[in-house]
Order: sequence, then C-alpha cells, then structure tokens
Amino acid sequence: MLDVVCYRRRGHNEGDDPSFTQPRMYDLIEQKRSVRKLYTEALIGRGDISTEDAEAVLTRFRDGLESVFKKARDEAAEDDSYRKVPYYPPKLGKTQGTAITAEVMAKVARAHVNFPDGFTVHPKVLPQLQRRADGILNGPIDWATGELLALGSLLLEGRPVRLVGQDTRRGTFVQRFAAVVDRDTAEGYVPLNHLSDTQGTFHVYDSLLSEYAAMGFEYGYSVAAPDALVCWEAQFGDFANGAQTIADEFIASGNAKWTQKSGVVLLLPHGYEGQGPDHSSMRIERWLQLCHEGALAVCQPSTPASYFHLLRTHAYVNWHRPVVIATPKSMLRNKMAVSQPSDFTNGRWEPAQGDPTITDPASVSRILICSGKLRWDLVTARPEAGLDDKVAILSLERLYPLPARELAAQLSRYPTGADIRYVQDEPENQGAWWFLDQHLPEAVAAFLPGYQLNMRPIARPSASAPSVGSLKVHRAQQDDLLERAFAD
Amino acid sequence: MLDVVCYRRRGHNEGDDPSFTQPRMYDLIEQKRSVRKLYTEALIGRGDISTEDAEAVLTRFRDGLESVFKKARDEAAEDDSYRKVPYYPPKLGKTQGTAITAEVMAKVARAHVNFPDGFTVHPKVLPQLQRRADGILNGPIDWATGELLALGSLLLEGRPVRLVGQDTRRGTFVQRFAAVVDRDTAEGYVPLNHLSDTQGTFHVYDSLLSEYAAMGFEYGYSVAAPDALVCWEAQFGDFANGAQTIADEFIASGNAKWTQKSGVVLLLPHGYEGQGPDHSSMRIERWLQLCHEGALAVCQPSTPASYFHLLRTHAYVNWHRPVVIATPKSMLRNKMAVSQPSDFTNGRWEPAQGDPTITDPASVSRILICSGKLRWDLVTARPEAGLDDKVAILSLERLYPLPARELAAQLSRYPTGADIRYVQDEPENQGAWWFLDQHLPEAVAAFLPGYQLNMRPIARPSASAPSVGSLKVHRAQQDDLLERAFAD
Repeated sequence: MLDVVCYRRRGHNEGDDPSFTQPRMYDLIEQKRSVRKLYTEALIGRGDISTEDAEAVLTRFRDGLESVFKKARDEAAEDDSYRKVPYYPPKLGKTQGTAITAEVMAKVARAHVNFPDGFTVHPKVLPQLQRRADGILNGPIDWATGELLALGSLLLEGRPVRLVGQDTRRGTFVQRFAAVVDRDTAEGYVPLNHLSDTQGTFHVYDSLLSEYAAMGFEYGYSVAAPDALVCWEAQFGDFANGAQTIADEFIASGNAKWTQKSGVVLLLPHGYEGQGPDHSSMRIERWLQLCHEGALAVCQPSTPASYFHLLRTHAYVNWHRPVVIATPKSMLRNKMAVSQPSDFTNGRWEPAQGDPTITDPASVSRILICSGKLRWDLVTARPEAGLDDKVAILSLERLYPLPARELAAQLSRYPTGADIRYVQDEPENQGAWWFLDQHLPEAVAAFLPGYQLNMRPIARPSASAPSVGSLKVHRAQQDDLLERAFAD
Repeated sequence: MLDVVCYRRRGHNEGDDPSFTQPRMYDLIEQKRSVRKLYTEALIGRGDISTEDAEAVLTRFRDGLESVFKKARDEAAEDDSYRKVPYYPPKLGKTQGTAITAEVMAKVARAHVNFPDGFTVHPKVLPQLQRRADGILNGPIDWATGELLALGSLLLEGRPVRLVGQDTRRGTFVQRFAAVVDRDTAEGYVPLNHLSDTQGTFHVYDSLLSEYAAMGFEYGYSVAAPDALVCWEAQFGDFANGAQTIADEFIASGNAKWTQKSGVVLLLPHGYEGQGPDHSSMRIERWLQLCHEGALAVCQPSTPASYFHLLRTHAYVNWHRPVVIATPKSMLRNKMAVSQPSDFTNGRWEPAQGDPTITDPASVSRILICSGKLRWDLVTARPEAGLDDKVAILSLERLYPLPARELAAQLSRYPTGADIRYVQDEPENQGAWWFLDQHLPEAVAAFLPGYQLNMRPIARPSASAPSVGSLKVHRAQQDDLLERAFAD
C-alpha cells in the first residue's frame, strides 16, 4: 500500500490565494521545496546525472514549451486558419452507392440460421432468426434486420463495426439478437462474426449502465478508429442526458474546438407511444440546438431500408461528424414500416422522401411533412379522412443538415398554393418544429427561388415534460393530433 | 460480512424473457420458490403466525393495491384534475414588498467586521470585508454584497437559507467570503450566522465536485423545506450539464409529473469574457427550451439590487417553482454594475427595466433590448457612438416567464417606429434570441394591442461551441457585436 498525498502548490486560478481557505496547509506547502528540485538533487547526489545534465533537461523542456507557445501565437495571429486541419485520414470503402448484392444479403441470412454443431438456440428465439433469414431473401425486412444488413455488409467489406449500449446484444425491445445465447451452456454466438474469413470484426457489447462513461468511450473509440463504424445505443433515447457533458463538450463541439473528428453514431430510441415522460423522447429539440457548422447530423428515418442506407452512407462518406439517430420502438414491429429485399439491392439514402401513393400531384391541396413513425400513423389515418388524393405525406428523414434540395424537389411537384403543415409527435415547444420554423423556409427558398414555405405546426400541446404520464391521455392526444392534421 | 445475492425473478418488461440471455441462471431461478413463500412458511413453522394470519396479511395487501389502482383509474377518467393538488403549504414571510430597513442593512454590515475575540481574519481578506461593511452603509454595493443582504435579511426574518456549491463559501471568483477562515487556526466563521439570536440558520457549504449529486440533493431539500431559500451554485454555469438529468427529470418537470413543488434556486455563472467554450455559457437556450406551464423561471439580472429583490421576491411569493439565474463573473467587479443603499431600502423586483438616462423618449429612434452584463457594455459604447439621446437600452432581467406587461410599459414610452434590436452575447443559435423571437412579439401585443414588435438579433455568429477559444478572437467578436448594435 502506498499512501500518496497530493497537493496543489498554487491556487485554482490567478485570482485565487488558497491561504484564504486553507491557511495552515498552505503554510506547510510554502515551506516545501518542489518535488522536481528534490528529485533532481537526489539524482545528482547519487551520481545518476550531473548538474549540467539536469540543467540541460530543464532548458530543453522550457525551450519546447516556448517554441510551441510561439507557434500557437503566430498561427492564431493569421485569421482563424489555425482551426483548419490540412489532413485527416479519409474513410475507407467504395463511393459508388450504398446498395448491396443479393449474395451479400444471402450471406447475412445464412449467418442467422447456421450455428455451430451442438449449439442450442433458445426455442423461442430460433423462429425469430428463421423469419429474419427468410425475410432477407423474400421480404419483408423489419428494422432490426435492416440494421444487421447494414452492419453485416460493412463487415463483409472488411470494415470494423462496434455496437455498444445498454442491453444492445439482444436489444432493449427484444428485437435485435445480434448475439445469441446457447440455451444449455449459456455461451454466446455472434452471427455477424461468421460471414467470411476476411471480414471485419463485429464488436457488440452490453455496456455498463452509465451513459456518461459508455458514450464517452465510444466517442473516443470513433476518434481513434476513423475507418470503423462506431455506434452507441441508449436504452431509451432520453437517457442520453446522463451523458450531456459528452454531447456538449465532445460530440457537438470537439471539431470546432480542437478539429478533433468523430464519426460516432448515437442510436436513441424515440417515440410517443404512451410510455410516459421518461421513455418517449430523445429530445430532438436539444440535439438540434447543438447543430451548427455541420457539427453533427440528426436523423429520424421511417423505414428499415432508409436506416440501412443512412448507416452505409455514413460509413462511406469522407467526412467525420457524429450522427444522432432517433430510432424506433413500436415501429420495430410496425407492419407498414418494413422494406423489401429490392430496397437494399437498389436505392440510396434519401434524406427527404416523397409520397409514392400520389398519382396526380396537381390534385394535392395539402402537404404534411413529418419524420419517423408518424409517417405511418398519418398514412393510416388518411383514407379514414377520405383525403387519399388530396393530401401528400412527405418524410424528413434527416433534420440537420436540412435536406433542402431534396425537400424542394418534392415540394415543387405540388401546387404552390398547397396548405403545408409540419406534424410532430412532440409537444409544440419540443421536437423539430421550432428549428424548422426558423430555418426551413430560407433553406428551401435557396433551391426554389421565390417559394414561400408557410408551414404551420400540428403538435401536442406545449408542455414542460416530454409527454403525459397517462396512457389514456396519450391516446386522446394522439387522436387529436391526427384529427388536426387532416382537419380543414 | 453478509454476501447478499439478489436476482430479478421476471424480465425487464413484459416483452422480455430473461432466459434468452441468461438461460442457466434463470433455470435456477425458476426452480426457486419465492422469498415471501419461504419466509411465510418459516414464520408459520416456528409458530409466530398462523396460516390464517398469513392469508389475512396477503389479502389486506392485495386489497390495498387494488383499491389504490381503482382510485387512480377512476380519478384519471375525470379529465386531468388528478394532476392538481388541492393544498400545498404556503411560503412564510411578509407580502408587502422586498425592500429592507437601514437597521437590517446595518446588522449585516456589522456582522462582516465583528469577529470573535482572538479570531484572526486573513490580512488580504480583512480589507475586503471592511469595504463590504462600508459599502452597505455608504455605497457602492457590489454583487456579492447585494446577495448577502438578500440572504441576511431573510435570515433576520427567521427564514432558513441554504447556499451550496463548488467553492461557494469563498466564492469561485473570490468574491463572496460567506465563510471566513482564521489565518492561524483554520477555523471557519460564518458572519451571517451572527446577526441576531432569533434568526434563521444559514447553511453554507462547499459541495463535492458532482453537479449531479449536489443539485439533486438541493432539489430534494427544497421540496422538503418549502419555507427555506435553497440555492445550488455551479462553479461555472455550463457545468450544470453534469446534472442534466436532475434538470430534466425534476426541476423542469417534477411539478407537471407529480405535482411535486420545488423552489430551488440555481446560480449559474455566465458571461462572454474570453474564457473559452467551457467557462462562458450556462446555456440559457437550453433552460428556455424546458420552460412551459410556468415550470421554472429563468433570470439574468444586471445589478446587485435587482438580484437582491429577485431573491427576496422568490422567497416571499406563494408559489413554488425553481428559479435559474445567470449570475455574473466579471460583472462582480464592474464599477457600473453597482447599487446604492437606497436601492435596497426602496424598490422592488423589476423583471424588465427601462433606461433611466433617456430624458426625451420622443427623440429615441432605436431600442436595444439585452440582459445581464451586456447592458453595461452597451451603456459604455453608446456615447462613443454619439447616440446618447437616440438609443434607449432596456434590460430583460427575467427571460421566462416573459415580463411582457413590464416590457410593454417601457416600449410604449418610445415612438412606435423605433428600430428594435435584441442584443445578446451568445452566438445567434444560442442564448435567448430564438425564444424571444418566437414568443415575445405575441406576449407584448397582449398588453399593447396592435403593437408590432419587429426585433432583429445582434449576436455572435452561430456556432456549434458556446464560444471561441481564443481571447483575441473573442475581443474581435465583442467589438463587432457592439459596433453592429449601434450601426445604422
């Protein structure tokens, strides 16, 4: 046992005199000679170094500090070019699109039904894996499977992939089974680590229940491994506030402050489904408040294929910025929010999606813009309102950077006098509305000169909590929300 | 030593089957009879209770649950009246204004220069306390002294006061000296605990360096002691993000979720003074994003007397909501930001302050609205711009709830065509601008029918970090900010 007593010789800052508050300790400290001097003398005394050696070391150290200081000062003097870094290792990987081949899909499918000899898959889990494999080949493909196709295809291209979070191997919502546990021996098996002999490694871990430590670690990993896809997942999206310091100090501003690049992906389950104030919102509004200078991207995709192309695009593009994704809860099992195999062998990341059901755009008199699962709530409610041909439903799959060009292309299909509403699940003072209200009209007008985007919000009533706590009140709010979306 | 092994019999939620991931442990757990049954049998076996007793206890317990469930369900069915609490203990104290008498001031002054026999005040601290005592009697009164006058006067009225934070006894900026340490014995002495024999107790502590634990504790204390003034202080305001969960889960939404009332005061040092991204901003924008339903108040006073009347008003009013205050750093020693004794023996909390230097309101062609220390930067820059009679400078000392009536009264003094600018220290995507832009025009129009509040922002360039990291760049931004405030 070593009992090491540490002290700070000087005050906390220039204005501080520590004897104001700890007079006796600082009387003692003032009498002490510095550890450096004591140690130097000990080294000289026992003949390890000479006095000249010691002075040379000190001089070299001081010169080093002085030269770095001078360099920093001189560089800071020339405008702000010191904030630009000339070189950063580009990401690996192809640039020709994000679709994958049927062979790659088949490999991922097979990995989920081929287990080692003697491995006993839990009898309730096995059928889910069989459905997954069948879905990959024949459709439909659900959210968790779309995600594993993104990760698996990157692994097959030799990329390392990390996916870490609270209950992440199985998935908070019992949806992922990225690791399967032997029913008898309790040994784990990770299907995506058995795709090929030359694949990248899939690091999938259940983290400790500290958002702060775990998100911080993955941020650091992403900085150190720019060619890896590094994802941290929250159990529920609002739990990320336990790591708010990491979000503020590193994820949002690390690049602006130190040109330190990270491509970390945060997966934050989000959705208004009556689970109450502590399980509904990943606070999109707060992430959007941190968005400027392209510091991070905030996305809320509405289909497994959209999420798949988003993850793959992020792994390919030659920039390094964090991506925050509002991931689904109930939509994991929503029969409308599925994709087909052809959506993976074709297609690309479309950050603003149109309405494929509208055959005669000229007859559209109203446009609803939304994100995530609300798309399917609106698509379901539209025929009930008898407005199938009149109302187009557009999905903003990325909220920042604003996909202004893509949204403008969609808007330009419809009559300019259309009644445009932004529909969000969140209370009106939360969610993306405040941000879109302030930024979207100008952003769209840059691509549609003269276009006046007059949106109005359809949202839950403003509130101080993210959601109500009663399932009954939640349902009444949801009915009201959909009714207002389609009301004249 | 007891080695207690705990387990959860069922899954994490209804959809969870824990044998998916921990098959062997759950094989064992399934074979176990429940602790309740085992213990009941043991009690019966050794004759402590009869089987009938055990069944009666179980029935009583189940009936209790059932009746509470039924009550909650029935109450939830009638609109949302279950969210209203019929009674909450009112705060103590007078309601006739917040000014104090010269005698109270004299008592606080004396306490700072009368020490026990043999107590040795640090020779560098003593003159500061003497200046404090002299200032209370003859002026000027600085920020820290104004604060101690608020706390001291409440103590003299018998109210308990808590002030807890990181280096709070002395003050982060060596400004407070709420506790004085004996230079020789290192014993502490708290002047405000020596005001009178019947006073309330002043609890002033340096907390551990965990914002999360300390803010959480003070929130809890404030709930349990509604008649106390309970303040938590951050070392720098942005450090409050270490307690973001407390802010989100309790401070902003505790009332909405559980009708749990708190009057906790958060003191968050804030100011753009070139100290860099991690010491400049308490993120007003984030607090304002949590503001709805009058859940909390967000204030940024500009004078010691304003802060004094704010604290006393908060301690008197018969509501219980948290108050978040952007407190000063350099303004602690700003010669303009001082008050006079008459500001304490008269006056009241004015959440929107006018410009006392304007003698002819009709000649004003521009109105600058600001908060906190920026008021004095603008007042200093105005004569340099040669615009003394033309530009009125108004101070919003409370940002939420919006002091719309008070601001409307100020605005109505000036020509309706005046050019109105909101000037803030923060980057344009941060600070209060986004919130005021969305809410202030409507709020003012409620008191000035037909008034079109067309403000435009004067702010630092939008950014992903709270501030630049270079003092040189900071100064250039500050010059530019003031120039734009006064430019045509």
